[in-house]
Amino acid sequence: MFETAEVGSQVPKEEYETQVPQLRVDLINAQYDLRNADFPTLVLIAGDDHQSCNDIVNVLHAWMDARYLDTHVFGPFTDEERERPRFWRYWRTLPRTGQLGLYVGAWAGSAVADRVLKKIDNDGFDRRVAHIEQFEQALVDDGALVLKFWLHLPKKKLKKRLKQAKKHPKKGWRVEEQEWQLYDTYDEALPIVERLIRKTSSGNAPWYLIETTDGRYRNLTVARMIRDGITTRLAASEEAKHKREKRVARRVAAHDLGSSVLESVDLSVKLPWEKYRETLDELQGRLRRLSEEAREKGVSSVLVFEGWDAAGKGGVIRRITNAMDAADYRVIPISAPSEEEKAHHYLWRFWRHLPRAGSMLIFDRSWFGRVRVERVEGFARTDEWQRAYSEINDFEEQLVEHGMLVLKFWLHIDPSTQLRRFKEREKTPYKKYKITHDDYRNREQWNAYVTAVNEMVARTSTEIAPWRIVAANDKRWARVEVLKVVDQGLKRLVKSVREGSRPKASAT
Amino acid sequence: MFETAEVGSQVPKEEYETQVPQLRVDLINAQYDLRNADFPTLVLIAGDDHQSCNDIVNVLHAWMDARYLDTHVFGPFTDEERERPRFWRYWRTLPRTGQLGLYVGAWAGSAVADRVLKKIDNDGFDRRVAHIEQFEQALVDDGALVLKFWLHLPKKKLKKRLKQAKKHPKKGWRVEEQEWQLYDTYDEALPIVERLIRKTSSGNAPWYLIETTDGRYRNLTVARMIRDGITTRLAASEEAKHKREKRVARRVAAHDLGSSVLESVDLSVKLPWEKYRETLDELQGRLRRLSEEAREKGVSSVLVFEGWDAAGKGGVIRRITNAMDAADYRVIPISAPSEEEKAHHYLWRFWRHLPRAGSMLIFDRSWFGRVRVERVEGFARTDEWQRAYSEINDFEEQLVEHGMLVLKFWLHIDPSTQLRRFKEREKTPYKKYKITHDDYRNREQWNAYVTAVNEMVARTSTEIAPWRIVAANDKRWARVEVLKVVDQGLKRLVKSVREGSRPKASAT
Repeated sequence: MFETAEVGSQVPKEEYETQVPQLRVDLINAQYDLRNADFPTLVLIAGDDHQSCNDIVNVLHAWMDARYLDTHVFGPFTDEERERPRFWRYWRTLPRTGQLGLYVGAWAGSAVADRVLKKIDNDGFDRRVAHIEQFEQALVDDGALVLKFWLHLPKKKLKKRLKQAKKHPKKGWRVEEQEWQLYDTYDEALPIVERLIRKTSSGNAPWYLIETTDGRYRNLTVARMIRDGITTRLAASEEAKHKREKRVARRVAAHDLGSSVLESVDLSVKLPWEKYRETLDELQGRLRRLSEEAREKGVSSVLVFEGWDAAGKGGVIRRITNAMDAADYRVIPISAPSEEEKAHHYLWRFWRHLPRAGSMLIFDRSWFGRVRVERVEGFARTDEWQRAYSEINDFEEQLVEHGMLVLKFWLHIDPSTQLRRFKEREKTPYKKYKITHDDYRNREQWNAYVTAVNEMVARTSTEIAPWRIVAANDKRWARVEVLKVVDQGLKRLVKSVREGSRPKASAT
Repeated sequence: MFETAEVGSQVPKEEYETQVPQLRVDLINAQYDLRNADFPTLVLIAGDDHQSCNDIVNVLHAWMDARYLDTHVFGPFTDEERERPRFWRYWRTLPRTGQLGLYVGAWAGSAVADRVLKKIDNDGFDRRVAHIEQFEQALVDDGALVLKFWLHLPKKKLKKRLKQAKKHPKKGWRVEEQEWQLYDTYDEALPIVERLIRKTSSGNAPWYLIETTDGRYRNLTVARMIRDGITTRLAASEEAKHKREKRVARRVAAHDLGSSVLESVDLSVKLPWEKYRETLDELQGRLRRLSEEAREKGVSSVLVFEGWDAAGKGGVIRRITNAMDAADYRVIPISAPSEEEKAHHYLWRFWRHLPRAGSMLIFDRSWFGRVRVERVEGFARTDEWQRAYSEINDFEEQLVEHGMLVLKFWLHIDPSTQLRRFKEREKTPYKKYKITHDDYRNREQWNAYVTAVNEMVARTSTEIAPWRIVAANDKRWARVEVLKVVDQGLKRLVKSVREGSRPKASAT
């Protein structure tokens, strides 16, 4: 693969100086046009030529309007990052629509480095690459423009550079260390880079392999490709956009579902008051102790609560939080996305909230809104909610792989119970605010929601993060059921960490 | 002080149950009204009664609309936090206008705990309290509603609670440990708390001391005070607002300045090309090595560039960054604030950017916009830019106290040089975008800007972070001058860390 790039491309000084001024104008114009675009742009600069990556960042800062260039270079993981899945650091820095994020090294560079330095084996590398594919696919499917450059310096040129550096030792020792390390591992690294590039060079986020022997050629080529990538994308017709959406929709098209999950729920189950008080006390006491041990052991959990309006989510959540120390949990109520959230991939806001080690994050509604309310109400296009299933599964997989407990609850009631609760709420002054016209309107769509929920459960109930359907016509029953599952899940995970059969969560 | 609170206030169950429903309605209404307010709200819950702090958080979550209640409980400092000044964790979580942030323990709780556990001595405690005062003052001056509650349980009641807990040991070991620790240090802690409360109970952010012997009394009182605080503030007339602004303006009113700093700058200095190339190479090589050592030693720096339009800030900054590794610096160009930034204290956006340990943050324009362009163009009210001087000094003091290098440069040119550069830029296609109608308009205000800059320099040139006025009619001279100062400053700081005369930066 690299032979094709190693042709010693050069640009004479004169030609360079003639070309650059217009290129700078074009780049700045492209940047300005981008600011009104309805998609974000990511430029990834990675490569075996560290010095060139550096130079290109400086060149782009000089040639473009630096105010609209958000550059991210990643050092060692901070502990806040280590306590979340590896991709958290990228998610939390994603540009919003109209913005341009410049990523240096990032997910590509670190995958190669980890393999070269033997921090991961071949399987680990392949898993990493699979996550990269899914990450980039999610962004591209969501409309992002992703431009990726691999800066490549042929080995003998690197050797020459190192020899010259010896004669002018003023650049600093760290550069030279890094460059020598590159040189020593050059032959091992090449096949790894090739594998990464082949695997993650999709039609919509291809890699551009750039030879860096000649700095002028390098600068011109990268800058032109950025300019062309942006202008082509901006010029793309609405039709092209629809085509892209259709392509996505086709890729993830619906397959037939088995029987309905919701129909099989026995809603008649009940718990008498005495029994409820007694069991609840016991379960809460246990949760308290487990959550303290989880904190000590750095075990985090993510609890997701979905269910019909008035199914009693709030009451269940309070029975959990009342048992815990306020420092150990955080409740995130999810409503309509803010402007800032709308300007990102819909999973962005959930990634941002991920908990620190040892704490519990409770979502009152969640990312499943995408395949439920946004689907039924038409807030998301078909291709958007259809690809959401696999995006969600990948997201939850990353949480579980990272050592988190992921529990998903659907609180199920029947329409008449819901109506009764609506009426009760309307009679209670401090609950009235919970009932709006929308709630009644949603009732008319009951069957559409049943279809959506059935498909949601079928497609996102995975072995590592299965759905728990909880009968909630009787609130007491539901609360106790949920607490049992939480206690059980937490107990198992804490125990496996205690016994060392599962390593403490860590991103590195 | 505490005797007045230890009166055993109680609320009978019946009264409680009559009162609560209306209180919940009021709270929710207050929350809804708040969402349109043009100020943020901070509720601080701290106290010697840890369990009550916890309970109150749960009660407020149950009684209010949890979607609009953003709760912050702070654990041990993360390394991202440790690498910034102590108050960074609070600044980065501040609510925007219309939002309500619930802070548990936070700056008050940790100040007391650190003193009781002897992590700081009396002087350290007083310095901490001074920062708290300035922090709260800055928020209140900016219009924030700040409500502070100290939850207090008399010692004998605590003893009783501990005895009862022994009989019902299901709450978890961590609670009991904490409570016993509280008990053991009770008598030492009380005078410390008193000192904190006396010092930080200003007219605009007073402490409410609440006895927690009776849970019903505690819940009712805290909730009522939150309701009343919000409704009173919302009902405050425009007149009251203006009065507050006038009071601030009076407190920070201008004092007479000495002679003008800018007039005394010798703008005729020049550097010939040969000498420039040579010196620049040397200085950049040195910066490279210093920045690598800074990274190793965790020495961070904050560089601020201000100056007339076309004074050459961008060129100077590039001479710095070209010498460095892209991972070691970050350039933050400051233009007009975004909507999100406008909805916070004006220093918020600068706090958010603070660098990680070992890296350099370069501001192309900065917080000094407040006392320069915002003052001259009338974007900030008089009381706002007048109080900015001391807020800025306190901000920079926190950076320096934390071990950061803070350098501030004013690039100075004369009006005719500026005009010549404007014309040159207009002739250069890729620089044309830098010149707008505003730039010419600003020239007409030259004298007003001179006054503002002179006052800015006089009031914010402190011993720990002095202004450097750089003659910049000759670009080469200016670049070399700045690089000299940067190298010098970095060298001194790196050396003092190397020799151990200055501890590595740490927030704890």
